[in-house]
Amino acid sequence: MKAVIAEIITIGDEILFGQIVDTNSAWMGTELTKIGVRVKQITSVSDSAEHIVQALDDARARAEVILITGGLGPTKDDLTKHVLAGYFHTTLKLHEPSLADVTAIFKHRGHEVTELNRQQAFLPEACTPVRNVLGTAPGMWFEQDGKVFVSMPGVPFEMKRMMTDTVLPQLKVYFKTPHIIHKVVQTVGIPESILAARLEEWETNLPGHIKLAYLPHLGGVRLRLTGTSNDAAQLERELQQEVDKLQHIIPKSIFAYGEVKLEEAIGQLLKERGLTIATAESCTGGYLAHLITSISGSSAYYQGSIIAYHNAVKVQELRVKPQTLQQHGAVSEATVREMAENVRQKFGTDIGVATSGIAGPDGGTPDKPVGTIWIAYADKDRTRAKLLQFNKDRFLNIQYTATAVLNLVRQSLTAAVEE
Amino acid sequence: MKAVIAEIITIGDEILFGQIVDTNSAWMGTELTKIGVRVKQITSVSDSAEHIVQALDDARARAEVILITGGLGPTKDDLTKHVLAGYFHTTLKLHEPSLADVTAIFKHRGHEVTELNRQQAFLPEACTPVRNVLGTAPGMWFEQDGKVFVSMPGVPFEMKRMMTDTVLPQLKVYFKTPHIIHKVVQTVGIPESILAARLEEWETNLPGHIKLAYLPHLGGVRLRLTGTSNDAAQLERELQQEVDKLQHIIPKSIFAYGEVKLEEAIGQLLKERGLTIATAESCTGGYLAHLITSISGSSAYYQGSIIAYHNAVKVQELRVKPQTLQQHGAVSEATVREMAENVRQKFGTDIGVATSGIAGPDGGTPDKPVGTIWIAYADKDRTRAKLLQFNKDRFLNIQYTATAVLNLVRQSLTAAVEE
Repeated sequence: MKAVIAEIITIGDEILFGQIVDTNSAWMGTELTKIGVRVKQITSVSDSAEHIVQALDDARARAEVILITGGLGPTKDDLTKHVLAGYFHTTLKLHEPSLADVTAIFKHRGHEVTELNRQQAFLPEACTPVRNVLGTAPGMWFEQDGKVFVSMPGVPFEMKRMMTDTVLPQLKVYFKTPHIIHKVVQTVGIPESILAARLEEWETNLPGHIKLAYLPHLGGVRLRLTGTSNDAAQLERELQQEVDKLQHIIPKSIFAYGEVKLEEAIGQLLKERGLTIATAESCTGGYLAHLITSISGSSAYYQGSIIAYHNAVKVQELRVKPQTLQQHGAVSEATVREMAENVRQKFGTDIGVATSGIAGPDGGTPDKPVGTIWIAYADKDRTRAKLLQFNKDRFLNIQYTATAVLNLVRQSLTAAVEE
Repeated sequence: MKAVIAEIITIGDEILFGQIVDTNSAWMGTELTKIGVRVKQITSVSDSAEHIVQALDDARARAEVILITGGLGPTKDDLTKHVLAGYFHTTLKLHEPSLADVTAIFKHRGHEVTELNRQQAFLPEACTPVRNVLGTAPGMWFEQDGKVFVSMPGVPFEMKRMMTDTVLPQLKVYFKTPHIIHKVVQTVGIPESILAARLEEWETNLPGHIKLAYLPHLGGVRLRLTGTSNDAAQLERELQQEVDKLQHIIPKSIFAYGEVKLEEAIGQLLKERGLTIATAESCTGGYLAHLITSISGSSAYYQGSIIAYHNAVKVQELRVKPQTLQQHGAVSEATVREMAENVRQKFGTDIGVATSGIAGPDGGTPDKPVGTIWIAYADKDRTRAKLLQFNKDRFLNIQYTATAVLNLVRQSLTAAVEE
């Protein structure tokens, strides 16, 4: 089965000069891989018509799909649309539905459409416009000699929405891509190297048409099984068998199947059991609450938080005993236990969780170096506290800690201990 | 003055398949720009000898410096060294100092050098080895026809150390690079298109050796001026003159100069004035607190937050009057004003800010559609509230709202109204 070959061209000096990191291409590479399209090259070029044309010529010689991002803004250094019009020997023409979209966006924001933005609704006649529901620059789909060229904005959320809604489904239809099925198994609390050792034998015995990828991220390790076959039903059964085997090897590290985030899985668990939760945060400074409330519908189980950044707030709002702070310090098992228990009582929830630690990069002591963090979970029956030891990176410490708290909730509710 | 042109080639399927985000190239682009080397293209290619050679040929036709990362590991899919040896018609030879480095690294880790790692000390005879003090793969510097090719490992911290210690200083010497100076001006609260219209005349009148770039992101638009000249002092003066003009055109939209985030600028402002702040969050669910506390040292001015996700918490913790909630609803000017005023009083801070809105994607009504969000600022003299109208994307609504609150604090403290 021959894979469809794609190339990605990103346009804009801001990538070349290092002002922004190109995260779009990695996202596109992942999504294209999932539908059986193989990315052969990613090329970042400057805001220069000649350079863009050269990149288009080079890419079409190697690939069947050329995806272009960037250069669609309203300012004069945004050349993509004009270059593409020239490249496909066509002229710009007002596309009324796009103008309606642009007008609606401006009206919604309480502004009149400027002439610069009105110009964004003029599109090459030879293209099929791709709707952009989140911004003012429509995308463009061109077909020529059996090859597809798609131009999209460089703004990540606009590009992702267009890819998901229109471009990926259309590519599947256009190229009749083979059956590729992915199964994702989400793990948390087990480091990649230990996981790999645990899974070695199983991985070695996977059938040839099923591949395994380890995708570690801040919140854990995603395991992705990718199967390719002509028989979708048979492939689906085979993949499920492998997932079932996995479930037997690491039953307590798996928190979800599919593209589910840990905060989403915890939310689901709380909803199913009809439980409510409140948070008391010191070192995570609102990030834990943010993760929980990033899930739509979280108001069903999440009541709120006291962010006690200052010790006075720990005493006044969370009723931590002054002598606890004095004897043990704010970063201690005793303090974090009181925080979890008291926020639970104060908000009248089933569960209370708390964080207190030294996020860094400054503020450490020989006793409690930067990265020393206590977390706690409290329900009506018990309180569990855990000491975490991370490193000097402030944001990483905050993220790891929030993940560890969510995992502590999961472990407490499911009686899953660490493997 | 002609800038030295560089290209970056990254080697490895893991980038193309989206398994890792290429952050190396942005870092290299930034550092090269600083020494007056202009990156013309970034190319990510697969682990294929033919493809690497093609990329080298293409790059040398456009650039004088070709920087290559990746493909230097000890495993068989790491081809770079062998491809480069062939490309420069040379053979591999043991480089004793590199073997000594590799041996030292293994000894430090308590291991014997493996045969695979010993092979890493065999380098093309035509290259000048670039020392890698942090890993087992040395870099390689080649010169041919006045062009420089440098191969480095893909591991970010190894590459960065080699660039800083060796490659950047050597490039400056080799190419006698010109002076390039950047000035960044940070704006918030003004859409890119309106900003562009406002700046059109000024931009058109910029001298030819000074370029302007618009770099929009979620928190505002960064404006970057880049000047090139033989006379650094004169260029510095010219750039400052242009920045001064900008300051007159959009005095109230500029919140900082240089690489400063809005939450950092607000923190600086609060610190300078000796003011403290507390937050009361509903729809932003902790994200505002997270932004504020993402800044190291924020405990100097940030006291904490009540996240009142549930209405009961708004009444109990924030003392919002039940009749206010009943008459106006949680998403209303009256409620958000009480939240800001009361959190300020409760925490004893100089400033209180609050958010309440419908983040979406569900929960809207005809009166208050998704994206309807009220924010408020309160100090001892006054309370200011503002209605925001965003769209249906939950995370974007949360991010835009947090930015709008920070901007409201800035505007209130600096008497800057919207332009």
